[in-house]
Formats: sequence, structure tokens, C-alpha cells
Amino acid sequence: MALPAKMPICGWLLALSLAALTGNIVAANERTERNCSLTPPYIPSTAVNTTLRLQELREKMLPLNISAYIIPGTDAHLSEYIAPRDNRLAFMTGFTGSAGTAVVTQTKAAMWTDSRYWVQAERQMDCNWALEKDVSVASVVDWLLAEVPHGGQIGFDPFLFAIRKHTEYEVNLESSNRTLKSIPNNLVDEVWKDRPPIQPYSLTRLPDRVIQRSWQMKVEHIRNQMADNPYDSTALLLSALDESAWLFNMRGNDIPYNPFFYSYTLLTMDEIWLFLHTERVTDELKVYLNASCNGPLCVQLKSYDTILGELKKFVAKPGCKVWIGTEYTNYAVVEVITQEKLFTSSYSPVLLTKAVKDETEQRVLRDAHVRDAVAVVQLLMWLENAVPKGTETELTAAHYVDKCRSKQMDNSGPSFETISASGPNAALAHYSPTNETCRRLTVDEMYLVDSGGQYLDGTTDITRTVHWGIPTAMQKEAFTRVLMGNIEISRTIFPSDTRGINIEMLGRRALWEVGLNYGHGTGHGVGNYFGVHEWPVGFQSNNIPFRAGMFTSIEPGYYKEDDFGIRIEDVAVTVPAQTKYGNNYLTFDTVSLVPYDKKLIDTSLLSSEQLQWLNTYYETIRRVLGPELDKQGLREEKEWMLRNTEPFSRSDSGSTRLFSSSLTLITVAVALLQNTV
Amino acid sequence: MALPAKMPICGWLLALSLAALTGNIVAANERTERNCSLTPPYIPSTAVNTTLRLQELREKMLPLNISAYIIPGTDAHLSEYIAPRDNRLAFMTGFTGSAGTAVVTQTKAAMWTDSRYWVQAERQMDCNWALEKDVSVASVVDWLLAEVPHGGQIGFDPFLFAIRKHTEYEVNLESSNRTLKSIPNNLVDEVWKDRPPIQPYSLTRLPDRVIQRSWQMKVEHIRNQMADNPYDSTALLLSALDESAWLFNMRGNDIPYNPFFYSYTLLTMDEIWLFLHTERVTDELKVYLNASCNGPLCVQLKSYDTILGELKKFVAKPGCKVWIGTEYTNYAVVEVITQEKLFTSSYSPVLLTKAVKDETEQRVLRDAHVRDAVAVVQLLMWLENAVPKGTETELTAAHYVDKCRSKQMDNSGPSFETISASGPNAALAHYSPTNETCRRLTVDEMYLVDSGGQYLDGTTDITRTVHWGIPTAMQKEAFTRVLMGNIEISRTIFPSDTRGINIEMLGRRALWEVGLNYGHGTGHGVGNYFGVHEWPVGFQSNNIPFRAGMFTSIEPGYYKEDDFGIRIEDVAVTVPAQTKYGNNYLTFDTVSLVPYDKKLIDTSLLSSEQLQWLNTYYETIRRVLGPELDKQGLREEKEWMLRNTEPFSRSDSGSTRLFSSSLTLITVAVALLQNTV
Repeated sequence: MALPAKMPICGWLLALSLAALTGNIVAANERTERNCSLTPPYIPSTAVNTTLRLQELREKMLPLNISAYIIPGTDAHLSEYIAPRDNRLAFMTGFTGSAGTAVVTQTKAAMWTDSRYWVQAERQMDCNWALEKDVSVASVVDWLLAEVPHGGQIGFDPFLFAIRKHTEYEVNLESSNRTLKSIPNNLVDEVWKDRPPIQPYSLTRLPDRVIQRSWQMKVEHIRNQMADNPYDSTALLLSALDESAWLFNMRGNDIPYNPFFYSYTLLTMDEIWLFLHTERVTDELKVYLNASCNGPLCVQLKSYDTILGELKKFVAKPGCKVWIGTEYTNYAVVEVITQEKLFTSSYSPVLLTKAVKDETEQRVLRDAHVRDAVAVVQLLMWLENAVPKGTETELTAAHYVDKCRSKQMDNSGPSFETISASGPNAALAHYSPTNETCRRLTVDEMYLVDSGGQYLDGTTDITRTVHWGIPTAMQKEAFTRVLMGNIEISRTIFPSDTRGINIEMLGRRALWEVGLNYGHGTGHGVGNYFGVHEWPVGFQSNNIPFRAGMFTSIEPGYYKEDDFGIRIEDVAVTVPAQTKYGNNYLTFDTVSLVPYDKKLIDTSLLSSEQLQWLNTYYETIRRVLGPELDKQGLREEKEWMLRNTEPFSRSDSGSTRLFSSSLTLITVAVALLQNTV
Repeated sequence: MALPAKMPICGWLLALSLAALTGNIVAANERTERNCSLTPPYIPSTAVNTTLRLQELREKMLPLNISAYIIPGTDAHLSEYIAPRDNRLAFMTGFTGSAGTAVVTQTKAAMWTDSRYWVQAERQMDCNWALEKDVSVASVVDWLLAEVPHGGQIGFDPFLFAIRKHTEYEVNLESSNRTLKSIPNNLVDEVWKDRPPIQPYSLTRLPDRVIQRSWQMKVEHIRNQMADNPYDSTALLLSALDESAWLFNMRGNDIPYNPFFYSYTLLTMDEIWLFLHTERVTDELKVYLNASCNGPLCVQLKSYDTILGELKKFVAKPGCKVWIGTEYTNYAVVEVITQEKLFTSSYSPVLLTKAVKDETEQRVLRDAHVRDAVAVVQLLMWLENAVPKGTETELTAAHYVDKCRSKQMDNSGPSFETISASGPNAALAHYSPTNETCRRLTVDEMYLVDSGGQYLDGTTDITRTVHWGIPTAMQKEAFTRVLMGNIEISRTIFPSDTRGINIEMLGRRALWEVGLNYGHGTGHGVGNYFGVHEWPVGFQSNNIPFRAGMFTSIEPGYYKEDDFGIRIEDVAVTVPAQTKYGNNYLTFDTVSLVPYDKKLIDTSLLSSEQLQWLNTYYETIRRVLGPELDKQGLREEKEWMLRNTEPFSRSDSGSTRLFSSSLTLITVAVALLQNTV
């Protein structure tokens, strides 16, 4: 049980082993979650005591005359992943999951999060908090209607509400006689004494080798779109962090795993205002940005905190009209723009332009996936040897793959916290191991690893599920059907401008056939050194239609509670498809290059088309990954890759049944011949 | 060329024959559409001269101070099919298609309709009208922004705008400095001198044998849903015509092909107000409706025209809150309800309840489809004999199937104007033959017939495409791929509560594979003696999720312009599917019972699953339709049906390719044996 030095000890694993010795496993499991129905309630050590901070927040609420205060789990840029200093939800509730909303009244407190996080919430929250499981705005509003008296006001921080979210609340509260009250000074910040400061970090510009379009070219391109827009917008306000990062080809590291810097951009036809923490802009970057002039291609640097004041002054001028995207702009900046000076679309022209990668972006993003595949192959090969020895855990595996990635060129860390999950832990779709929960890896459990890297040239995200022992028939069937889902999406041909939501059922269909399904989405956009979930591309209902040159993950799965979890995730790019009769059709080209666990594939379930796709994919892995492994001098890894990409033979496939009837025919033919002879 | 008496003469066919004699076919074709770029413009005889009526309308617009007037193609109940007296769009423009919107300014006039109707519009409109092809509200608004000056008003009839449509216009006009002006007195009616009157028709109640729930039971059921609603609605306003028809188990015939009567219902917990043309209510119906009392199960009859006045009085009472469905309620009734007295959902609880058919409804709707199949089999068999003789046309075929249906029990006419289309006419997806356009049926062209019946127990809708000669390889491939689409949807297994829009791509996928597609939806709800397109069930994005007991059409197609059209349409009901692991899964059970044209099926393209589905379907036709044909003494039809439902053998199927390799194997085996011997 000796773990290598520098590897964190898997605390819960040790506790479990101890419990097993005393025959008390169930009790050990129970103790990880709170039990508020006991007197006194049972609170696990992983929970945070929120009594005092709740009391302080309630005191701040009183003079404002609000009956409830909403605490969303986001930042002023509606980022999906946020910096610790923006994690007001975690501070108030103890819950650290990446999605949630809290509401506090003078007597109650409730937190809404989705099924991925229910167990985690029960482990991290004390009994001040109720856990609510329906995360729709309607559900939050139902709760508010029960708790807020008629005529009551509900406070919220307008910086933390997307415009669309604000509208959704307003629509749901309509004619309920309760109103929203915008409070720009965040009340949680007022009681959060040791809130982390802004990081003193220098921003960087991307190297030229990963860029096709300079920031000046991008600015011109966006201005052309503004000029073409019939609504006569005179300015574009960019609020999402990846918008400014993309426009200026710059990156930062304000948010873990996400190379962003806090910023807004106001772009007009003859000026560019970049709001950011100006003290972090080096002299070199000032030159890069033409920061010392005021012309159309000069970037005027403004202090981040002046956004509302500057915007107010700007919109006071006659004839101006500001274009904003409603999905990623906060309500605070919209509050200061009068209705007739506002033009909205779901996504800004920057997000729509960024969604289609240019030739260079496509090339370097593919390159990043080749190097990334090396790291994942190294992990899988290492585990195959190490796991049977009984020394590895979910955490050691996660650290191993992170280390492998860090050795690859242009890597700047993982793109999210590695999900390394064995057996029942993998049934929690977004589980990441901690000392308290981590399991030892064994030949008796399926293992799921979902990980990705940030590289200067691209962001990666890949999931493989493996078994080092003998999988059950059900595990093999479920894995094969998840794989069939992945293949069916990957190989499908569809007209350009088809929405992901209209084809994502192909990822589920083979599972549905036997009454299985999964509870998460089927894929999200991925790009060139941005957040790992890059909107607005993917298979969700609010994603934009596919055009050639978009990168998305494809990740069907299946999760059997308390037993195992399967997910097979690849990144693919939409490419033109040649068809017999039509033009303007697309298909996917998979850019992740790691073989699937052969042991888990029941080829008799695959159609001949699926089998053919699989063999073609494996040929691609050999052709593209092989030379990279050679280049890096990884002989053993190359052999492992070749062993695991051997083509499946026809006789393994679903056509077996047909072939067996062919064999009967042969037998008959032979028998006939023999009679003749 | 002698057509049977009573059959209308196919005028255009004769013209075409004459043209052919003089070698002038192309010119004959050209002459059917207007040409506004000529001087003077060429206007075909099928077009309507709208100069005078436009002038009169523009005079009515002047005193109202509106720069534009919108004329939607619907009625006050947002009906899809409308009575001639409501066809203001047709009166103003000449265009008689079932979907369109017109806008008139003092100098311009434009009409928006979708691709199904572009050719028809060019034939029916004079050069006062521009044809606009993007039917989105955004496109209409773009046009309005170009034509209406800043500060200008745009007039509309609030009775002809669904609430949702009104919101859509408002959102699109937002911050454009143009406003909508509600004008409850319709301006077209003011210039339409010979507008048809209301029909003097007696309403009827449905016979008990087709009903499980009396109107009293339905009222109680809906009241329970009102009581359960957390928004405390005290009244439900029903505005769509099928809502009142369903609730009271009553029908009328105000709209051709649609058994509806003009009506609104206001339902509270202790009163029922039915607004209709009271002079049409017979004494027997008054008894049926308990019309002489005021209790909770008494129907108080109110005059149709008093709806706004009565509603105003009703909402003036304190504490009332009116529930309406935004998809099928006009803006006029909402205008009189203040915001805080309104509760909205997309569809009323009546439309949602009606969407799931009860046991009796399911049984009798299946029965109607059995009798309906007899009529379609009679048509197909008759055409097979008659067409080679050269005497039949699109119109004679349409009349034949209408006549066959009329002989079936409980038939009350077709459910829409029969689409009977040969060769290039079938490429117009919703073409119906007229004297001017109808073609002779020949063995050289594909033929498409889309028809349906209204029966007291159900509404039917079925499309078959056939060829009496030798189809081209492309026709056969396209037909087979359309059929594959129909089969793939029909046989798919999916979780209850899946939306149609998420699975409808299965109807397109086999076409997409070779770069083909179709430009219309994939299916719509069908029900028990209502309109043939019964909302909100189907495969459109605003349809509700599927639950067991919903009936929908499944109708993929393919249309090759100026050449041929294919559509294969069946009605199917969602039924529970048994799966290996899961519960609450559904699949479709096809209730239309007419075989497909064997000659057009390339079985080598079908998967073994598709082939198996097809053979099982044919067994069902034999099992269910066979006894009905026997009962009706239709021996010849029975033989035709049996001939056309012979099972496809395995050797016809997609496994051919595998079998041919098996044959190679056999050859090899035999060769080896011979060598041995």
C-alpha cells in the first residue's frame, strides 16, 4: 500500500480499507454525506459551517428591504468556470461544484444544482441549506413565490445575471406581485473578509505561428459585420472573456484551467476601448496593441472597474446604438443603456466568427491533438502494467496523465480538473477524485478517465473507459452501444447549417434500443487555447448550426448508479462531405487519436458501416500518431498503439450471422459437389 | 381523350397537347407564370387584378395614420385552414395557398410565402405584388424597416395575430422607432364587398360510439388541472376551434375539410360560457349542453360577437386570472386582459390533454384507417389498370379516390384537397390539380397521391408514390431512401417525452447520405375528426414531447424540380416499447395500411432491420386489412393487396453484397475441392 512519494495519499481509500477490516463498510460510506433529519444533525467533516456568514449576509439584506437574495455561481462575464474570488456560491454554501444557484431569505437558504452534483452537495453543505434538484428558473421562482410575501422584493447582483437569465426570471415572476431589485454592490463580497485578490499576472500575446489573423484583421472583419448589420449599430460591447481574448490574440490566467483575463471591449467604427486591469499590461503589450494613440486601429486601455461609468458616458451621445449578445452579457451593462440605443442578438458577431476556425487554427488544433494523444496513450499503457500490481489509485492516475501532458510541447497545464473515476465513482458523471473519495484501481472495476490539455495551439478534451480484467456482458454491451453512438454521430453526413440538437440522438439511439440512456449533453465546442467548453458550438438546443471548420466534442455515455460509468469522448471537426448528388454537405473528422479498449467492444453488435468507420479511424491513428511517437522516441508506446489499433476482421462483426448462413451454403455446395464427384 | 361525364376536363392538358402538336411546349409552360420584367408585364389569366382593391385599401389606411398594413393568412382562431370568408390574403393578392402574409404600404405591396407555393404565387398574383421568399418575421420586419419611415406606425388586425406572433413582431421591431398599431376593425373587410357570409349550418354532436369521455367528464378533468396549477388561474379561455369542438364533443363545418364551428369557450370553476352563433344551436343541442341553467355543468350560450365585451366585464371582477395558450389565442382577447390577470402557457391544458388519445379514441382512429386503406387500395388498383389506357388525369384520379372514400362508413368527405400529381407537378410539394395545370397520367411518369378522409371516428392522411412503367435508377434510389427514412422513424425506440424534432433527422438520414433532402416538415399530429394537421403533436420544433397514445404522420419525401416528386406518408401511434433494460420507452405503430410500390424499392439498399420492419408491416396489412376487404366483399382488391404485400426475401436485401462475396467463397471452395479431387 506504499504510494510513491509526491503522490497524495488517497485518504478515503485508507479509511475504507480500515472499515473493511472491521466489517463496517456501509457505515464508512454513510458518513460522507450530511443527515439533517437526525437530532442533532450529522454534518460530515467535508461540510462548511455557514451559520455566521449567513447571519452576516442577512444583516446586509435588511436595510435594502429585500426578502430574498439570489447568488448565482458565475462571474461578471458569465464564465462557466470561475476564479476562486468569484466563487461566492462556494463561500456562502460550502458547495464547490461548477454549477449552482443559491437563494437566501431571513429564515431559509436553498441551493439548486443538477444531478451531477447532488452527492457532492450533500457532502459539502451544512444543514443551514436545503438542496433543490430542479435547476430550472421556474423551480427557483416557485420556491421564491412560496417564501417571498406579496409585494416583496428579490435582490440580485446585475453583474451575475445574463440578460437572458434576467428576462427568464422576469417572465416567471410576471403577475406574481414580486419584483427583482438590482443591487450592483455584491452583498456576499461585503461579508467575505478573506476574498482572494486579483492575481498579479502578466498577460501574454499568442505566438505568430499559431495565428492566421492579426488582431487588426479581426477588428476590420468585425467592423465589416457591424456595417452590414441593418440595425445601424455604432458599437459592439464584448463581455465574455473569450471574446476579448480572441479579438486581441491575447491570453491570461485569471481562471484556473482557462487562459482568460478579466476584460470588456467596446468596439466602434473608429475606436477600440479595452477595459482590463491596466497595471498588468507590459510595455511590450502596449506596443503590440498600439496603446498610445486614438485612431481606428489603436487600442485605448481603460481601467476594468470603469466599465459602467465609461459606458454611461458613451451611450449619452446622440445616435449611438450598442450591439450586445444576450447569452454572454451581464444585466449590469445593459441597465445603463436605454432600450432604443440597444441592439441584441443571442451571440455577438465575435462569438459567431470565432466558432468557425480558419485554416491555421484548424491545422494547429489538429496538431495539439496529436501531441495530446501521446500523453493519453502513455497513461493507458502505464495503467495496463501498473494496475494489476495494486498500487495505483484514481489520484495517481490523474497526476500521471497531467504529468505526461506537461511534457508535451506548448502545454500549459490541464484544460480542466482530470476526471479519474473507478467503478461506482465513474457513475457520477463529473466526479473528480479527492483524498476523501478516491478509489484504488483494480482489475475488477471499469475505469473512466476524462482529461484534456491547454496548449498554445489548442485545447483538448478526451475520455476513454477501460477494463483491465474481465468485463461483465452488460458492461461490454453498454460500452459497445456508447461506442456505436459515438461512431454514428461521427460518420453521419448532414447538410451544412444543421443544428447539433437535430442529430445528437444518433449518440443515444443504440442505447435507447435496449432501454439505456445518459443524462448529460452529447458535446460542446472546443477551440484554440480557450475554455474547454467553447460556446456556441455543440449539440445543445441553444448551439448554432454546424458549418465547415467547427470543432466539437462527441461524448455519449452510460452510467449505472453505484456500479460503473462509461463515456467515450472525442473531438471532431466538421469537414465537407462528398455526396453522390448534393453539395454543401458536412461530416465529422475525428481529431482525437486514441484507440478504444478492444476488450469492451462486442463487434457482433456493430453494423458493417460502423466496423468500417472504426477500422478507418484506427488507420488514421496509425498514420498520424505513429510518426509523432517515432519523433518523440517512444518505441514502447508505438508498439502499444499498433497492438491496440489492429483492424477488426469482418468475422468479428454483425455480419457474423449472415456469414454463418454463407458457411451453411458453402457446406451445402461442398456436399453437392462431393455427391457429384 | 374522352373523359367520363361528371369528370371536369383537364384544360391545361388539352392546351399542352395542342402546343405539342405545334412544337411549342416550352412556350405553353412559360405562359403559366407572370413576368413583371416585361413592358408591359405579362400577367397569366390565372392571376387576379388587384389594382382597384389595393387602391381602396390604401384609402382606408390614410385616416388611421399607418404607413403599412399587415394581412396574415389566418382567421380569429389562428386556424391553419380557413373559410373563404376569412381568406383576406387571397382576396387582396389573388394567391390562394394555405400559408402567407401580405403587407401593403401606400406605394408597395409584398407577399411572403414558403417554397411550396412560389410557383403558385407567380401564377396567381399580378404585378402589384412582390413575392418574398423568406417567411420569417425577421424578413417581414426587414422589409418594413426599409419601407416605413422612422416614427411610422404599422397597422394590424389583433384578431389575426397569435400572441406569440405579436411578441415576435414587437421583439423584431424593438428599438427600430416603428410601432405596431392594433386596429380591431379589419380594413380588408371594409373594401371586400362580396365577402361570403357565415354558413347557415346546424352543429352536431358526436355519436356515443366514438366517445369515451362525455363533455362533462372533460370539463371536470380540465378544471382539476386548473386547480392544480400553482398560478391560481380562475378561468380558462379557449380560442382555437378544435379546443371547443373537443371539449363539447361537437362538430360543425364552417371551414372546408375541417369539421369546426366558430367558437370561444370561457371555463371557470363554476361556469361554462360558450361563444358561438347561437342561432345555429338546435333545441336538441341545447338539452345536450344543459343550456337552460347556470350551474357548474350548465353551458351558457353567448353570442360569438360578444366575446370582447363579455371578457372585459369578466376580467373587471377582482381576483380573477385568465389562463390562455399563447400559440392559438389571438392578440385581441389578450389586449382586454391586464397583465396581472393573465397566465400564459404555450398550449392550453385542453390542447395538451387532447394530444393523448384515450382508449376509445385510439381504437376508433385505428378503425377509420382500416376503412381508409380500402379506398386507397381501390384507387391504386384502378390506376394500375386504367393509366396504361391513357384516359386518366390527375383530376380523374383525385375524384376517384374521393369517391372511394365517400363509400366508406362514417365518411364525411376528404380531410383536405387531394394532392394528385404526376411527373414535375409532384415536385411542387403541396400541389393540387386544377383544370389549368393537370397532367395526363402515363407509364412514363411517377405519380404522387396525398389524400385523406374525415370520418366520424377519425381523420386520415396518407401519401403513396407509384410508377406504372420503368423507373429510372435515380427515381428508384430516391424512393428507396425516402422509404428508409419512413422506416427508420417508424421503427426507432426512444424514451417517453422525447421531442419529435430530436428524432426527425432519421427521416432524412438515408437521403443526406447521398446529398438529397426535402424542404418540408416530417410529420404532424392527426386525430379523431379534427383538422388534418392536429397540433401540438409532430416533429416540428414547437411540438410537444411524445407520450404514449399520440398519433402523428411520418412523411419524408424528395422532390426533383421539373422532374418528379416522392413522398411516403403514414400515420402512426406512439406505443410502449419493450426494451432489454429500461422502462418508459416508446416506438411507433403504423396505422395506415397500404403497401408501397414494390417496383420502386431497391432492397439492396435496405438494412436487414429495415427489411424485417417492412415484412412485419406487410403481415400487419394482411392481418388487419384482409378481413375488412372480405367484409366489404372486395375480392379483386383483396388479391391485389395480397400480391402487393408478398414478403421480400432475404436475397433481395442489402446483404446481397455479402452474399455475393459468399458466392465467391463458394466458388473458391468448389475450385479447391475440384483441385483436391
